Amino acid sequence: MGEATLLSDRGTEILIPVCAVIGIAFALVQWVLVAKVRLSNGKDSAGGRGGFTEALIEEEEGLSDHSVVRKCAEIQSAISEGATSFLFTEYQYVGIFMVAFAILIFIFLGSVEGFSIKSRPCTYDSTRMCKPALATAAFSTLSFLLGAFTSVVSGFLGMKIATFANARTTLEARKGVGKAFIVAFRSGAVMGFLLAANGLLVLYIAINLFKLYYGSDWEGLFEAITGYGLGGSSMALFGRVGGGIYTKAADVGADLVGKVERNIPEDDPRNPAVIADNVGDNVGDIAGMGSDLFGSYAESSCAALVVASISSFGITHDLTAMLYPLLVSSVGILVCLLTTLFATDFFEVKAVEEIEPALKKQLIISTLLMTFGIAIVSWISLPSTFTIFNFGVQKEVKSWKLFLCVAVGLWAGLIIGFVTEYYTSNAYSPVQDVADSCRTGAATNVIFGLALGYKSVIIPILAIAVSIFVSFSFAAMYGIAVAALGMLSTIATGLAIDAYGPISDNAGGIAEMAGMSHSIRERTDALDAAGNTTAAIGKGFAIGSAALVSLALFGAFVSRADISTVDVLTPKVFIGLLVGAMLPYWFSAMTMKSVGSAALKMVEEVRRQFNTIPGLMEGTAKPDYTNCVKISTDASIKEMIPPGALVMLTPLIVGIFFGVETLSGVLAGALVSGVQIAISASNTGGAWDNAKKYIEAGASDHARALGPKGSDAHKAAVIGDTVGDPLKDTSGPSLNILIKLMAVESLVFAPFFATHGGLLFKIF
Amino acid sequence: MGEATLLSDRGTEILIPVCAVIGIAFALVQWVLVAKVRLSNGKDSAGGRGGFTEALIEEEEGLSDHSVVRKCAEIQSAISEGATSFLFTEYQYVGIFMVAFAILIFIFLGSVEGFSIKSRPCTYDSTRMCKPALATAAFSTLSFLLGAFTSVVSGFLGMKIATFANARTTLEARKGVGKAFIVAFRSGAVMGFLLAANGLLVLYIAINLFKLYYGSDWEGLFEAITGYGLGGSSMALFGRVGGGIYTKAADVGADLVGKVERNIPEDDPRNPAVIADNVGDNVGDIAGMGSDLFGSYAESSCAALVVASISSFGITHDLTAMLYPLLVSSVGILVCLLTTLFATDFFEVKAVEEIEPALKKQLIISTLLMTFGIAIVSWISLPSTFTIFNFGVQKEVKSWKLFLCVAVGLWAGLIIGFVTEYYTSNAYSPVQDVADSCRTGAATNVIFGLALGYKSVIIPILAIAVSIFVSFSFAAMYGIAVAALGMLSTIATGLAIDAYGPISDNAGGIAEMAGMSHSIRERTDALDAAGNTTAAIGKGFAIGSAALVSLALFGAFVSRADISTVDVLTPKVFIGLLVGAMLPYWFSAMTMKSVGSAALKMVEEVRRQFNTIPGLMEGTAKPDYTNCVKISTDASIKEMIPPGALVMLTPLIVGIFFGVETLSGVLAGALVSGVQIAISASNTGGAWDNAKKYIEAGASDHARALGPKGSDAHKAAVIGDTVGDPLKDTSGPSLNILIKLMAVESLVFAPFFATHGGLLFKIF
Repeated sequence: MGEATLLSDRGTEILIPVCAVIGIAFALVQWVLVAKVRLSNGKDSAGGRGGFTEALIEEEEGLSDHSVVRKCAEIQSAISEGATSFLFTEYQYVGIFMVAFAILIFIFLGSVEGFSIKSRPCTYDSTRMCKPALATAAFSTLSFLLGAFTSVVSGFLGMKIATFANARTTLEARKGVGKAFIVAFRSGAVMGFLLAANGLLVLYIAINLFKLYYGSDWEGLFEAITGYGLGGSSMALFGRVGGGIYTKAADVGADLVGKVERNIPEDDPRNPAVIADNVGDNVGDIAGMGSDLFGSYAESSCAALVVASISSFGITHDLTAMLYPLLVSSVGILVCLLTTLFATDFFEVKAVEEIEPALKKQLIISTLLMTFGIAIVSWISLPSTFTIFNFGVQKEVKSWKLFLCVAVGLWAGLIIGFVTEYYTSNAYSPVQDVADSCRTGAATNVIFGLALGYKSVIIPILAIAVSIFVSFSFAAMYGIAVAALGMLSTIATGLAIDAYGPISDNAGGIAEMAGMSHSIRERTDALDAAGNTTAAIGKGFAIGSAALVSLALFGAFVSRADISTVDVLTPKVFIGLLVGAMLPYWFSAMTMKSVGSAALKMVEEVRRQFNTIPGLMEGTAKPDYTNCVKISTDASIKEMIPPGALVMLTPLIVGIFFGVETLSGVLAGALVSGVQIAISASNTGGAWDNAKKYIEAGASDHARALGPKGSDAHKAAVIGDTVGDPLKDTSGPSLNILIKLMAVESLVFAPFFATHGGLLFKIF
Repeated sequence: MGEATLLSDRGTEILIPVCAVIGIAFALVQWVLVAKVRLSNGKDSAGGRGGFTEALIEEEEGLSDHSVVRKCAEIQSAISEGATSFLFTEYQYVGIFMVAFAILIFIFLGSVEGFSIKSRPCTYDSTRMCKPALATAAFSTLSFLLGAFTSVVSGFLGMKIATFANARTTLEARKGVGKAFIVAFRSGAVMGFLLAANGLLVLYIAINLFKLYYGSDWEGLFEAITGYGLGGSSMALFGRVGGGIYTKAADVGADLVGKVERNIPEDDPRNPAVIADNVGDNVGDIAGMGSDLFGSYAESSCAALVVASISSFGITHDLTAMLYPLLVSSVGILVCLLTTLFATDFFEVKAVEEIEPALKKQLIISTLLMTFGIAIVSWISLPSTFTIFNFGVQKEVKSWKLFLCVAVGLWAGLIIGFVTEYYTSNAYSPVQDVADSCRTGAATNVIFGLALGYKSVIIPILAIAVSIFVSFSFAAMYGIAVAALGMLSTIATGLAIDAYGPISDNAGGIAEMAGMSHSIRERTDALDAAGNTTAAIGKGFAIGSAALVSLALFGAFVSRADISTVDVLTPKVFIGLLVGAMLPYWFSAMTMKSVGSAALKMVEEVRRQFNTIPGLMEGTAKPDYTNCVKISTDASIKEMIPPGALVMLTPLIVGIFFGVETLSGVLAGALVSGVQIAISASNTGGAWDNAKKYIEAGASDHARALGPKGSDAHKAAVIGDTVGDPLKDTSGPSLNILIKLMAVESLVFAPFFATHGGLLFKIF
């Protein structure tokens, strides 16, 4: 045993599950508060709840109109049903794939020692005996399925909450923007806390169950646990890609005919694609995002654990220090809980201008509090000095240095968040410049938007580079992994403000479809504009953490595959680097083209309905929503296969035929190239969306000179917005998963590649 | 002395200059043939020249209209004057920078040994004495200036030839498309051969002059010669960026008001920006491209020479083998000469459909012939076995393997050319799909175009990866350098078909401005459409060779900086990789935004003229062309500084503060990321341009269903084309130079960085 930590092992064993349970309980409380807004009986339940209703009471309108409530409830259930049915279809297809892949994992990893059931010398410490490779194969497969299942649950719950909350947000908007904000934000919090707590709890339980078999063989235990990350990310990949294609095919299709050709407003109930569009927000932005961030969280935990298991924590069986990554996440839940209260109870949003600052404050408060949280966790759970495995050697690390690693990741996340806000919020000059370029038409808008996205990568990349340098220098790959965890430690808050966006977007859609008054639509629009920015911030976090996570996983893979250097000056590595840097382009080409083709089909269907259904434009006939839902569903199920296969198969093919050196090059290349495209794509898209909203809102002289809706400049802005849709919601965010997934997959298969890989070079 | 080669040193000393002189003579002959088309006295000189006039004689029209000839001559001289005056202004500004940078080179390199004038032990073979570092500083500075000067001459001559040929092409178009094709192609050949031969001759003379001082110190001699590559590329950077901004500001500005708002045809003389647009083609596409490819050629020669000088060729002073790279280029000139005759004399273009195949045949013929050429050169000038310096050790190489290195580069170039053609020519489905997506508007057009560009990187990257793997495995960095030379060995033909494009474009412009008949404009349009594809192919070559060249330079830099591994698993290298991969985005953001802003200014000026000059739209008043020329000139001079500074200063800053390891990472990162953006940007732009032309030409039922000019689909196509302009002609092609220039600059400054670099890490 090493030096004792302040927190006893028993304390750790209590603290982690308790924090997780608190997180779940808090999520349920928020749910109950949201549920108090009644949809069913039309009786309004507002007033008297919380301490701040009085101030806004004068804004209330139309509260007694029961038919509006019924209409909202109807629309909500249509969206909810559409989303549920899509997710079930998606999960069926992906389920088959997951089972097949699970079998592959078992066979490949089992074959490492020829399916022997005898114990073998450990990989890193050959003086001791470890469990057979077959056991690792079995448990990796198990944790892979567990990760996939948890990811499904995360995405599905998120979607359920969002579709539960959207109509309630609309109804609360009748009472004022502050009320609506609270409902939307609370619902986001439900999702954020459920995901964070659930992910932690399942991982913690899995570790304890696996320990029953593995006993003191922590090396094997945590190697098997990495399957959890792979499962989570594989599921997230299909969720992001499938959901992304679904939502954007519907969105682009609806906009191109509705807004551009027919000149009807967004979310107009006459548009046949409007339900599909709103379903898409929930399956793409909510379920996809939930799965994605859960994957990042699971992977960074696994990466940290696997490196720790072969460091002094694992060697001396120091449980508290070993579970340091989980302790950071546990404290993160408490910190986020406190942070949430700042938005919902301590302060109050009274006006439109206060929404964005309130959300921004969430980021700042959670980061500040978490810095102390990390300091405390580092102080009580780490020995003052310990060693960390660093590519074949043990490197000595002081606990305060590890604190700095986590903190640098946390603060880098904040910087990325702020930079993203600067480049995508229409309160600042970059988006205003893009809006201004619409004066000369769509072409300059596109040119300026692309340039903005390219430019927006500079500071995030420098922030990531600094985090990497600091944490790498201090604690090698373990440092990187905990830096990623630091960035994700406030995931509950991050997800809350992220989920808030699509919920508000849907709320606006429901208001429009239910024919509610213009002033209500203005309020939901204001919520939505802030939501666009927070969505971009959320994507920034997702990408930044993905970069760190995949580097940590890459390091763990390199260690496991027994490579001590990845030298760019060898042809094997360099061609890997070059081809790896190409993969994000290939992947983006696939996903963008998929959205484009699906949107073309959608456009044709929507045009067909407008042309053949008499009375549709006049609002006397109802469009056929189901057909559009079907087009989106079919397209996304069909089109998610090729990009999914590209990501899942590349590491296998490269590892088997070209070996681990080339695979290292591919991983590094995909990482450094993918992160740039991901950031620029999601910021470009966010900026175009908000440039359009800037012109529509007409809140300044400049904006009014460009507007109003329907002006040439506005039309140009709509074109930019449409181009941005697949960039920001399909190809951009899927790229994080590409980066992470290839790395975690390589790590899981590392024992196999190290034994049987590189066939091509072995033959020649 | 090593094993004797079949070709004696005396033979080498004769062969190289003789081939260069033949190339120059051939270029002059072509010039004379082009000059036979008279502009001045209106007397037509056609008929009886060459053996193939009779077949086309029935197409002739309007030959007797002297006023048309005079008008063409006037327009041509306006374009020529504009281009000359811009280039002079540009050269003045860049000249100041070059002198400053030359001083920097001298001071930095001189300081390596504290400006000592004493001989010192050689870097790689410390048993021998080499010339002092001060001498290398002085000669590097000299060769830097020489390279810059040669680059200026190359670009300037190219522009002069192009502006000499464009009106002549227009006039010949009266006699048929075949005639016009010959004039345009011959003019391209003048430029191609002048550049290739001139670059070779200057380099050869410089080596011989430097040898007078260096004597047997070949290590120092060829280290100093690398300045030639740096000078060439620095000049090319400013040429490409400045010219690119110039041409696209004018083009975008002219199109946005003329084609989109006023609905007047391209190149209509009423458009005030029309002269600036045509000037832009010559300073951007011609002078910029010429400087760019000259830079690539100079750098790959220098990279090969510097590696060879520390290999057995240099150590045993085997002159013939040492000058193998120059011998390959010499034979390349002869091969291209023969190839050119296939287009101008052996076969004949009779119809529009034959233009593209004729140009494609040039690529195939030159590649086939050159394969034999390389085999012969390798056979006569290389010992059967020799050693190559490979990061600290000597690696044994057989001559046939070196032949394969050159050949694999050559054939990879052909593959890249064909893939580029497939993705950018409107004869194939990718561009037709993009055109088809215009049915649903500009947004889907942009989405499909971006996806096409992303997809088009796959095969070129795989081709480059294979070349790298083969040549790296066979002959280390020397193999890469000669592979790059192989790709560039047919540079004269490549440049000829590349320069052909803008010449045809200008010819079309002149036809429109001179008010010539519709059928003539159709002929020049057909020439131009083929030119778009060949321009894309030329860019493909430029990018592919840039990737190989910069890898070779990178290898030479690493050797010179005395690094034996560039390990991705060290924080110093990894952050370099990440930040390096970001630089192309930063650079693209700058250049695209520059084009956008300059275009906005241009649009305002053009709108102002249309609104304030009475009778302009009716054609009764003349627009103020000079103002538009001034806007383009001012914008490009001002806007080329920041991106230029980014590229020139990054290696210096990184090298001085972070040291050679981080700089290695930056170079590798910029290379693997930049090459993807460069390929995708130039192919996306080319595809949009030809999708528009596809709709305009209406050559198939599908195309006619989308057209005609002015239809909604065509308007959407014009928006795509406009977005593509800065991508394909400004940011995309400049990225090659970014990659190459940072590498060659690092190589030149390597002695300084190795001695004084990495201040930041030294302090902390």
